[in-house]
Amino acid sequence: MNVHDDVRRRAESARRAASALAAAEGTVRTRILDEVGRLLADRHVRSSILSANAADVDAAREAEARGELSPALVARLELSPAKLDGLADGVRTLASMEDPIGRVDVRRKLDEGLVLERETVPLGVLGVVFESRPDAVVQIGTLCLRSGNAVLLKGGREARRTNEVLVEMLRRAVAAAGIPEDVVVHLPDREAFAALLDLHDLVDLVVARGSSAFVAKVRASTRIPVVGHAAGLCHIVLHPPAAPEMAADVVEDAKCGYPAACNAVETLLWIPGTEDALAAVVARLQRRGVTLRGCAATRALHPDLEAATDADWDLEYGDLVLSIRRVEDLDAALAHVATHGSSHTEAIVTDDRAAADRFLRQVDAAGVFHNASTRFADGYRYGLGAEVGISTGKLHARGPVGIEGLLSRRYRLRGQGHVASAYGPGKRAFLHEDLPVDFE
Amino acid sequence: MNVHDDVRRRAESARRAASALAAAEGTVRTRILDEVGRLLADRHVRSSILSANAADVDAAREAEARGELSPALVARLELSPAKLDGLADGVRTLASMEDPIGRVDVRRKLDEGLVLERETVPLGVLGVVFESRPDAVVQIGTLCLRSGNAVLLKGGREARRTNEVLVEMLRRAVAAAGIPEDVVVHLPDREAFAALLDLHDLVDLVVARGSSAFVAKVRASTRIPVVGHAAGLCHIVLHPPAAPEMAADVVEDAKCGYPAACNAVETLLWIPGTEDALAAVVARLQRRGVTLRGCAATRALHPDLEAATDADWDLEYGDLVLSIRRVEDLDAALAHVATHGSSHTEAIVTDDRAAADRFLRQVDAAGVFHNASTRFADGYRYGLGAEVGISTGKLHARGPVGIEGLLSRRYRLRGQGHVASAYGPGKRAFLHEDLPVDFE
Repeated sequence: MNVHDDVRRRAESARRAASALAAAEGTVRTRILDEVGRLLADRHVRSSILSANAADVDAAREAEARGELSPALVARLELSPAKLDGLADGVRTLASMEDPIGRVDVRRKLDEGLVLERETVPLGVLGVVFESRPDAVVQIGTLCLRSGNAVLLKGGREARRTNEVLVEMLRRAVAAAGIPEDVVVHLPDREAFAALLDLHDLVDLVVARGSSAFVAKVRASTRIPVVGHAAGLCHIVLHPPAAPEMAADVVEDAKCGYPAACNAVETLLWIPGTEDALAAVVARLQRRGVTLRGCAATRALHPDLEAATDADWDLEYGDLVLSIRRVEDLDAALAHVATHGSSHTEAIVTDDRAAADRFLRQVDAAGVFHNASTRFADGYRYGLGAEVGISTGKLHARGPVGIEGLLSRRYRLRGQGHVASAYGPGKRAFLHEDLPVDFE
Repeated sequence: MNVHDDVRRRAESARRAASALAAAEGTVRTRILDEVGRLLADRHVRSSILSANAADVDAAREAEARGELSPALVARLELSPAKLDGLADGVRTLASMEDPIGRVDVRRKLDEGLVLERETVPLGVLGVVFESRPDAVVQIGTLCLRSGNAVLLKGGREARRTNEVLVEMLRRAVAAAGIPEDVVVHLPDREAFAALLDLHDLVDLVVARGSSAFVAKVRASTRIPVVGHAAGLCHIVLHPPAAPEMAADVVEDAKCGYPAACNAVETLLWIPGTEDALAAVVARLQRRGVTLRGCAATRALHPDLEAATDADWDLEYGDLVLSIRRVEDLDAALAHVATHGSSHTEAIVTDDRAAADRFLRQVDAAGVFHNASTRFADGYRYGLGAEVGISTGKLHARGPVGIEGLLSRRYRLRGQGHVASAYGPGKRAFLHEDLPVDFE
């Protein structure tokens, strides 16, 4: 069987399994998650996970020695008993949450005996592709199970052995609850994932986690809707009065916390009157070994900075590099952000509340922050629980995508033989009376 | 200037105007809608709308005489003072509703002095294409204004004069409130709309209203997300015990109310034990002049029916034609709907509540109905107010799309210099304490 037929057959099987998972009582989905938590703590299961992981790490270290993999990537690949404890904790949190399926957010009496409800339903079948961190198999897989969706997962090549064992563990928990185990499917390689991207009749949503270039490539290769961030070019604006110490703290955290993250800052914009804050930021980042590239006005104050070119304003460095530009006023800052921003997360540091409010109101991005680091843009930090990814699109889900982004809604109407032609001018009128709902 | 450059320039202008509309206070958007309502009642404005419409209708009648337009289309084209009164009523309802922008549905204290909010924001710029009914200009235009979005509208060719006058009226109301009038733009022809479909950097959403084939064509011609129903192939299932009178009422309404509508029924499925209900439906529809096409088992009971072929189960007739098929049981009915349905609206007629509940739970469609006509699937009937279209997709908006479908959300974080690296194992813990929100 060729890879296309094979992946189509698996997606069809996943679709049938998704129907069974969605139609089951919420207690069944809870039981599956409880079992995943139990398996993650089981001695035999742990030992098989850790030995598969050790094989992956050994191979990765050899590749690192050959210069084919970065040390950072190898470090992210490694699992430990402590990491498995953390994963089990996360799964238990998901297991204890209220069932998100079948929750009614609209309940409306259209007429006597005719009641409309809108309830949450799963999306159906998801395709998820992500980088080497094998923890993602458990985090994404259990989010999908909690929300009643089937998922076909493709992880990084370096973690293939670990991912296979983790997917097998999820399938074991699914089967133990009497649901077809194909609700979770492991896709072994890029060819299989490429085949999945053709299945727009079977797959409802693709979640892509990886570099901007990678997400853009996935998006261009499929007619299935894709959730992911095509870029993360975040700005911090210094507006007077800006406290130097706060400015240095926020920019340092936003740049140095994890420079490869999509929520790291790439460009600092400063407005005249914030020279002291700028000086504090420059001094702090130079101590942290950050390469600073300034516009001419910035270099007039800090001649030791590299010269920025126009190209710098559109670069997502993903590294310990920051570009710095002087802008005349808030309007100029807003214009720069609108032109060069990626609608991910934009921040302003100032004690001027009115200026901050205008910034928060006028910037069109998934996250708009005042006196806080851009690094807070994250599902866990937002308190959404785990996330499958961050969306910079405006439709469906925006920002970190958790359970809510994996749900759709359905209208349910119960009548007693009601017909639409009975209503209209000179005929019956609708009541449209809202009734109490299950949740806010 | 060629049509591509011209449309791009207008979309850029609409984008700037959208920012101004979104940043304005809600009272400004209300004032615009009040002014639209006032203009629709103004004697001079009315006379210019009705004379433009008379010219469109005259031209359409000539085309009808040449056999180029259907009488139904010409009838839908015509405006009257009573229709303008109805439009003005609708605009006043929109004007009196609470501002949907800036409403907070998540408010969470992440830590002392660090508060996250999620608020509604407009999508930005919409492109909308619709059929000949010129009322749609006012309905769609005012929905966009209420929700803070700019819109580029393309209506039917037959209504071009009327649409131009109506758009001019909307622009006049916008300008009177001090907002750039390019927040509403009229696209004169298909070439202009085709050019718009290329502007995925400027247009956030396309709404397409028209035939299934037309919506499918729009979807295939653009990388911009499209809201619309690609098909409306709705079923009604008769499950025993089914009251004959109710079955006849519901199916008659669903087929004959407006056969060209997407929520009309196309196929009736009956389960053994509903022969009396089937007979009542057949008799009723035959009296209404509906062509009935039955499977062999159906024709064994009703030999006067035409013979259905397998192709019939996939046909959206859009006309007074209904296909009828016997299915063995509820499982067979569910399987038929899953295979041939278009995820629009599916109904069951039965007094068996358990069977109905199973149908409502297991059918994957935007609307699932019990003992009610599929024709209720409509934004006005649901009590959502006006709608820009009906979505059969699962992402973003599902079912009738009103104000809610024209909004996105944005996370707003206010801190006091908070940095993300202060949190984690052995460091500060997040509070994640939910605070009261503005609305449910």
